[in-house]
Amino acid sequence: MVTRTIEWRDGVVVTIDQLKLPVRLEFLEMRSCAEVAEAIRSMKIRGAPLLGAAAAYGLALVAYHSKARDRIQLLRELEEAAEILKGTRPTAVNLFWAVDRVLEKARSSHGDAEEIARIVVEEAERIAWEDVEVNRRIGRHGADLIEDGDTVLTHCNAGALATVEYGTALGVIRAAVEEGKKVRVIATETRPKLQGARLTAYELMRDGIPVTLIADTMVGYVMYKRMVDKVIVGADRIVEDAVINKIGTYQIAVLAKMHEIPFYVAAPKSTFDLNHKAEQVTIEMRSPEEVTFIGSMRIAPEGVDVLNPAFDITPMRYVSAIICEDGILYKEDVAKLKADRLV
Amino acid sequence: MVTRTIEWRDGVVVTIDQLKLPVRLEFLEMRSCAEVAEAIRSMKIRGAPLLGAAAAYGLALVAYHSKARDRIQLLRELEEAAEILKGTRPTAVNLFWAVDRVLEKARSSHGDAEEIARIVVEEAERIAWEDVEVNRRIGRHGADLIEDGDTVLTHCNAGALATVEYGTALGVIRAAVEEGKKVRVIATETRPKLQGARLTAYELMRDGIPVTLIADTMVGYVMYKRMVDKVIVGADRIVEDAVINKIGTYQIAVLAKMHEIPFYVAAPKSTFDLNHKAEQVTIEMRSPEEVTFIGSMRIAPEGVDVLNPAFDITPMRYVSAIICEDGILYKEDVAKLKADRLV
Repeated sequence: MVTRTIEWRDGVVVTIDQLKLPVRLEFLEMRSCAEVAEAIRSMKIRGAPLLGAAAAYGLALVAYHSKARDRIQLLRELEEAAEILKGTRPTAVNLFWAVDRVLEKARSSHGDAEEIARIVVEEAERIAWEDVEVNRRIGRHGADLIEDGDTVLTHCNAGALATVEYGTALGVIRAAVEEGKKVRVIATETRPKLQGARLTAYELMRDGIPVTLIADTMVGYVMYKRMVDKVIVGADRIVEDAVINKIGTYQIAVLAKMHEIPFYVAAPKSTFDLNHKAEQVTIEMRSPEEVTFIGSMRIAPEGVDVLNPAFDITPMRYVSAIICEDGILYKEDVAKLKADRLV
Repeated sequence: MVTRTIEWRDGVVVTIDQLKLPVRLEFLEMRSCAEVAEAIRSMKIRGAPLLGAAAAYGLALVAYHSKARDRIQLLRELEEAAEILKGTRPTAVNLFWAVDRVLEKARSSHGDAEEIARIVVEEAERIAWEDVEVNRRIGRHGADLIEDGDTVLTHCNAGALATVEYGTALGVIRAAVEEGKKVRVIATETRPKLQGARLTAYELMRDGIPVTLIADTMVGYVMYKRMVDKVIVGADRIVEDAVINKIGTYQIAVLAKMHEIPFYVAAPKSTFDLNHKAEQVTIEMRSPEEVTFIGSMRIAPEGVDVLNPAFDITPMRYVSAIICEDGILYKEDVAKLKADRLV
């Protein structure tokens, strides 16, 4: 992808409206934190690392457009905006991490409102730039795990569209392809929001990487038929004992284990939350209409009871390794990271 | 459900257009074998036992409307129709079984064209009636496996709409409910054709049986959360070493095993094909548009490569028991059936 998924342009945040893809490539211009929060809530913007950058830019919009006359007033405005952003989606941790990082930076400055506004915008820009660099590093490390000729199954979209640029799981695939390896991808459509069909298929086709789309019911079939060499997915939060990611990840991990297929998670360290366990994480429940409607088309009887968790929990025993910007982490490395309080 | 899913009315076969459900309940009147074949191919009619009855009625339409003046000519017309019907869908075996049964009956008669026509219509009617009775018996046997308070997960639609009446997997649930047991159902939506969302949710709600709809990505989640006591599905073909059923069945069976949840298959003996093994069965591949479009809405990029197998293969080791009209069969019983050539 040539353009970034999200960009700062002098007081305007420009991003792709991901709900319109793949039918239309439409850009969304956001001028207030409220618009950013709405875009996150409605999933026009999604993907854990992208949510981090978007939230940081939400604060940048507050700072840039603020009429606050002093430091205290601006900090209060930023804190209010931070609460709104943190209230959008409860599971992905990058959003909280980015908001706290920007707030911390603002608070630690002794400058005036103007100076703090400048610092906030700079920090948001830095978070976005770092995400690109971090994804490139994840890609380079992860590419070592991919062999020439591999077919890699991925779920949801952990690509350029889930990040500022390049992607985590798809970044690994891009890096392997850049190294000259032939890689094929099997993308699950990822109901209910169809990020695999709409976004992963779209961005891989744009890049000329061969991709085959399957329904979520076909994962077992392609593994049974030995069509899958590896699984790579992203993560919304990595806790001490589990990876929390898009609904459907857990069952793919179980199936991978049963078929002796390596299951890798690619995610930046901003996704790590090793001081918590899976049972402490709130799994977001979303509206029944995401399941009973596709677009404006009803596909289930009116009034049917629906369960719609947005994420699930994959215990660490199903995870072969986690690929982050520092390298490839195996189970013992994750435990060590926690012991060393490095994350 | 009060009405039968398929009925013979003096030279017209009346059935429900299942592609219109749950939004509209529309009846389809078929007057020729070609119309029956088209309805099967396009999945207006689907479900292994229903396909058997529909194919038999397709031959009944030929016989009833034939202008053949002698036995030989009518038999030739029936044989041609049989070939057309057998060419519609390759996997479910009940269709072949029903066509062969009707043909055999016609061939073994020494009567004239009129007499054979009467016999063919009668035999088709008998197949339909037997299906109802067989489903009731499957229900009664299977209900023994269901405990008061159970939550049963089912995939696709193995209900009244997949049969002439009552259903196989859903027949077991209906029978348990008729015995006074409280049963809840979790129905997977079953992409790509959404039979779970459109048909299973619809017929259970009509019957007042509590049903919760989930996307296919959520099976692992509900099992992980211990929300599922049993799994019951239907079958399109049961061979010596495996159950062949709607795509997605295999992965549910694997997940059930990993979570120590019993996995039952409910199917009439007309589904059994114990002289073959899974590797000998043709798995129907259907059109990419079933995955890339929902109704008229495109959900994936134009030109994306798609895999769309309609069925998958669940090895017998994942099947806790098969419920048929004769009772509950465990692995050794299936082997014995084969050895005794009883099926």
